Amino acid sequence: MTAAAAPRARFRPPAVPQVDVGGFWGGRVDAVASRTADILYQRCVEAGMLDQIDPERPSPGVRIPFHIRDESAASTVTTQMFWDSDLGKTIETAAYCLYRRANPELEAKIDAVIDMYARLQQPDGYLSSWYQRIQPGQRWTNLRDCHELYCAGHLIEGAVAYYQATGKSRLLDIMARYADHIGAVFGPEDGKRKGYCGHEEVELALVKLARATGQQKYLDLAKYFIDQRGQQPHYFDGEAQARGADPRHFHFKTYEYNQSHKPVREQDKVVGHAVRAMYLYSGMADIATEYGDDGLRAALDRLWADLNGKRLYVTGGLGPSLANEGFTADYDLPNETAYAETCAAVGLVFWSSRMLGMGPNARFADAMELALYNGSISGLSLDGSLFFYENPLESRGKHNRWKWHRCPCCPPNVGRMVAAIGSYMYGVADDAIAVHLYGDNTARLEVAGRQVRLTQESRYPWEGAVAIAVDVDRPTRFTLHLRIPGWCRKAALSVNGKAVDLASVTADGYAAIAREWAKGDRVRLDLDMPVERVRAHPEVRQDVGRIALMRGPLVYCLEGADNPISLNRVRVPEQAPFESRFEPELLGGVVTLSAKAEADGTADWTDTLYRREPTKAEAMPIKAVPYFAWDNREPGEMLVWLRGA
Amino acid sequence: MTAAAAPRARFRPPAVPQVDVGGFWGGRVDAVASRTADILYQRCVEAGMLDQIDPERPSPGVRIPFHIRDESAASTVTTQMFWDSDLGKTIETAAYCLYRRANPELEAKIDAVIDMYARLQQPDGYLSSWYQRIQPGQRWTNLRDCHELYCAGHLIEGAVAYYQATGKSRLLDIMARYADHIGAVFGPEDGKRKGYCGHEEVELALVKLARATGQQKYLDLAKYFIDQRGQQPHYFDGEAQARGADPRHFHFKTYEYNQSHKPVREQDKVVGHAVRAMYLYSGMADIATEYGDDGLRAALDRLWADLNGKRLYVTGGLGPSLANEGFTADYDLPNETAYAETCAAVGLVFWSSRMLGMGPNARFADAMELALYNGSISGLSLDGSLFFYENPLESRGKHNRWKWHRCPCCPPNVGRMVAAIGSYMYGVADDAIAVHLYGDNTARLEVAGRQVRLTQESRYPWEGAVAIAVDVDRPTRFTLHLRIPGWCRKAALSVNGKAVDLASVTADGYAAIAREWAKGDRVRLDLDMPVERVRAHPEVRQDVGRIALMRGPLVYCLEGADNPISLNRVRVPEQAPFESRFEPELLGGVVTLSAKAEADGTADWTDTLYRREPTKAEAMPIKAVPYFAWDNREPGEMLVWLRGA
Repeated sequence: MTAAAAPRARFRPPAVPQVDVGGFWGGRVDAVASRTADILYQRCVEAGMLDQIDPERPSPGVRIPFHIRDESAASTVTTQMFWDSDLGKTIETAAYCLYRRANPELEAKIDAVIDMYARLQQPDGYLSSWYQRIQPGQRWTNLRDCHELYCAGHLIEGAVAYYQATGKSRLLDIMARYADHIGAVFGPEDGKRKGYCGHEEVELALVKLARATGQQKYLDLAKYFIDQRGQQPHYFDGEAQARGADPRHFHFKTYEYNQSHKPVREQDKVVGHAVRAMYLYSGMADIATEYGDDGLRAALDRLWADLNGKRLYVTGGLGPSLANEGFTADYDLPNETAYAETCAAVGLVFWSSRMLGMGPNARFADAMELALYNGSISGLSLDGSLFFYENPLESRGKHNRWKWHRCPCCPPNVGRMVAAIGSYMYGVADDAIAVHLYGDNTARLEVAGRQVRLTQESRYPWEGAVAIAVDVDRPTRFTLHLRIPGWCRKAALSVNGKAVDLASVTADGYAAIAREWAKGDRVRLDLDMPVERVRAHPEVRQDVGRIALMRGPLVYCLEGADNPISLNRVRVPEQAPFESRFEPELLGGVVTLSAKAEADGTADWTDTLYRREPTKAEAMPIKAVPYFAWDNREPGEMLVWLRGA
Repeated sequence: MTAAAAPRARFRPPAVPQVDVGGFWGGRVDAVASRTADILYQRCVEAGMLDQIDPERPSPGVRIPFHIRDESAASTVTTQMFWDSDLGKTIETAAYCLYRRANPELEAKIDAVIDMYARLQQPDGYLSSWYQRIQPGQRWTNLRDCHELYCAGHLIEGAVAYYQATGKSRLLDIMARYADHIGAVFGPEDGKRKGYCGHEEVELALVKLARATGQQKYLDLAKYFIDQRGQQPHYFDGEAQARGADPRHFHFKTYEYNQSHKPVREQDKVVGHAVRAMYLYSGMADIATEYGDDGLRAALDRLWADLNGKRLYVTGGLGPSLANEGFTADYDLPNETAYAETCAAVGLVFWSSRMLGMGPNARFADAMELALYNGSISGLSLDGSLFFYENPLESRGKHNRWKWHRCPCCPPNVGRMVAAIGSYMYGVADDAIAVHLYGDNTARLEVAGRQVRLTQESRYPWEGAVAIAVDVDRPTRFTLHLRIPGWCRKAALSVNGKAVDLASVTADGYAAIAREWAKGDRVRLDLDMPVERVRAHPEVRQDVGRIALMRGPLVYCLEGADNPISLNRVRVPEQAPFESRFEPELLGGVVTLSAKAEADGTADWTDTLYRREPTKAEAMPIKAVPYFAWDNREPGEMLVWLRGA
């Protein structure tokens, strides 16, 4: 294998149970473990999902109407087709939560669901509640639209997580058998189908399965799906023709929608459905990591530059348009109508974390942190019970959290991401550990066959001081890579009280400390965390002349609850100093930012709508709260991009 | 009759043939006469309208699908129901144009259409191509949705116009007979229906019919429709029940949609479908004028204040929302997504011109002029061949003029308004003439039984100098009311070379010159016309921190064709002087506004999307063109509200 000729450090994430999380993320995980996980299961039951997967019950038939997006083409999609994926993500979330907090009732329910899948699985390994119970006889006839492999992927992810958290391998065995069946149906060999899923997901799931089982074949299958995507003759054309359909009657007009418009190695623009794009790039990053595949890496770097240079919200949200749930044009980042689906920001966390598999690089960790602290967890209420599908950056007060969605992809997606936060904090290679995220936690990692325990103490993201205690059974040589966040202009590092010259040890935004570590070693990192004004590229017409407030990794916003005024009347003078203050009683405890700003006055406007005289400014104290925490109080206006000087 | 006890001056518009228009409006009328009028007829034919109205042809049935707006309620509307109105407006436009410019071919075609209507009319006078030919037996069963009286109204307007322009009374006779039938069906008397149309229009049409025929009964019927509107028990409730329908299943949920939510005299907010609202208020203003009805006037004043104080675009456009083609919330005036239907601005011209019936008042004339020069004629291409339905105040270049619309209400509406411009220029009372609009024209008016000829010479709206020559057969005493536009800060008036002290003769924005006028009298008015920066009320969040440019009655915009830059990058410093220059070769000859502005620079931004350093400004010369003339060149960006200092 070519890749083996040029081995390199591959950083893999720890399994969730390897990291005990406290502090900021501990609170978020507890909300998921104590509320969200049960809610997810309950909502799945209420939707009727168990009626669909349990082979003992009569088939419920189609309960949710097929989508009608285009009257000229009979539509073929109902969200009911995705139910296996919703259950997969629910199982995955539950798994991480069971590790966090015993919940025998929920565990029993998940075991019962797994039992249904065990009984549903066909002798050949095939497993799809939709195609077995609702549309029998049509399996593998519409990979473009019907999420068949996507559902498999989410069940695989759920299986790996459930195994890691509980040690129970039943679902893992089921899904390995199904993966084997998929490998027998799809592949480069003669007689196998040359297809891949319209909604990417199975690729990254197969990587997880390979890592959990040690089976290379799953990696190879993932790589096949990735490399086959967008090849000519186009699989989705032939598949449509085989169904007797005209491929041109694709609802979304262009194969950019599912990133199959050209082979992935030739792609350089992030296009189409945002979640699909993120899942594809995540799988590509995994494969680039595992195979040391520089060609794939080059494509990923181009795509990364495109997203981060032209198509990403300041919150780490992405995909501005409802129409395709995805990308539009360069610099098109409307705030009030931002789609910015929770799942897409979660997907960016997936992608960026996997880019870190190829080595520590703050470029990727910065984006991961941005999406984590802002555009993804904004999708989950502080108590873990309510959800956002869209994450706009401006609201007139009518955008409020929902109990559930018709297409319930986001709730379990943000749930599993939050509950798995520990696995994003570190990367582990043969002789190195990378610390990507800071905050209270204890990690039990294995480097060069040795157990290493790292204990972080930090009030991050509210404060920038981080203390890391290293605990090893006996002195062990490895490199500790410590991220110096891109948002930090001034950092100080010491090991056992001795200052380290950051400039000399830092590469790609990580300080590398290579030494023989001994029990009791102490690392201290101080990250300066002032309030910063952020500006958007002037081609972003919605943000021009405006500023966003950030402190550390957090993006802030104004809410009507704190600022009883039309928020677009507010103007923040360039020199107005901001005061940051931790408010323990507010929104579960957050640092707020306050300043003496101005507002366009209305007192002298009487009844006229337009006039020639300039508007008079009046003093207006403002208080900003973290964006992720918005709409957790009474409904009201919200604004991220504030008018600047 | 009470109103007769308190007679007052009633200003009525002259008929179109009484005013020969040159200059700016002459060019616009010529475009309509030479292109639009023929196009309107041709498009009506192409749509199949003649197949529907000609009783000699087989009924074409439903050609345009019924709208499906709400799946829960069977919908009852197709635009085909409105075809009589489209033909009525087409006849009206043609009538004004035939006066302007002989067109025997078009006249013969219109005569043939009138002949079809003559043959279609039932012995009882009823006339509706939809209900006679497509849905026989269902007449008067759904006034709420089906535009039955609305169609009658537009045919009446067409009939009056055709009679005034050609002297042919055939259609007028037909429509008078139909109006008599309507009067026999609807009214306060026992046994008559207590209804009114869901889409107002017949009210103002009946006023025109009354004025053209001298028949008070048509005024009374118009007044009945107006006063009956919104009374309880609600007619539309009972009508729906009679059809076996649930009144609550109204597509638009609220009777605010058609302004029947409460009796009109109690209304104080402009709500619902914008065109309907304007037509209703137009009819109310006519009735208030004709009956000296102060109660109606008080309601109109409240509605006027609401529109002009909270819900009107700076262009005179109105109705921001596509959803109800109408009004939303106070100060909600989005620019890029503005619906601002051409018909609605035309409707505002109708309403404001009728408010002037109660006496000269610049408040109303200013709004009429604003809508005329900006938000209405923006809907017609300079050559008279292409149309806008929506008139946004910002475009990324994808909003371009159409050849036609599925619901073709706007093309003939702007056509008939432009072609009738002469009738908006003046108001004539028993002993007074009001000059509402300036520009080259000659008017033949009658005051106190005497012929008065006024000849205006002016390059208005490009220059503010106006010369008016008075020509009377013998010396005649009347008051000449000359409008001093609200946009003008400095005006000078002279009569026969002698300065008039404006302050002492001006009331409600009109200078009143009461004297015995003699042949050869000359009035000279000089209106200072600098470039003005206009600001919106700070509660209009889309415009905050921005300015609009106006010069005289014209609103300006930037277009990509003149300004090759993302227009939101442009910033106009508060002190930047503007130079205005007439460019005879540009857009048919317009005054452009130029200034040295600034733009947010992108040169030092490299590949990043967000940064902390402020953006550097770079010099950027800008050139603005009149808003009405936009999108008459290559497609590109357009922006009205420019970033200010």
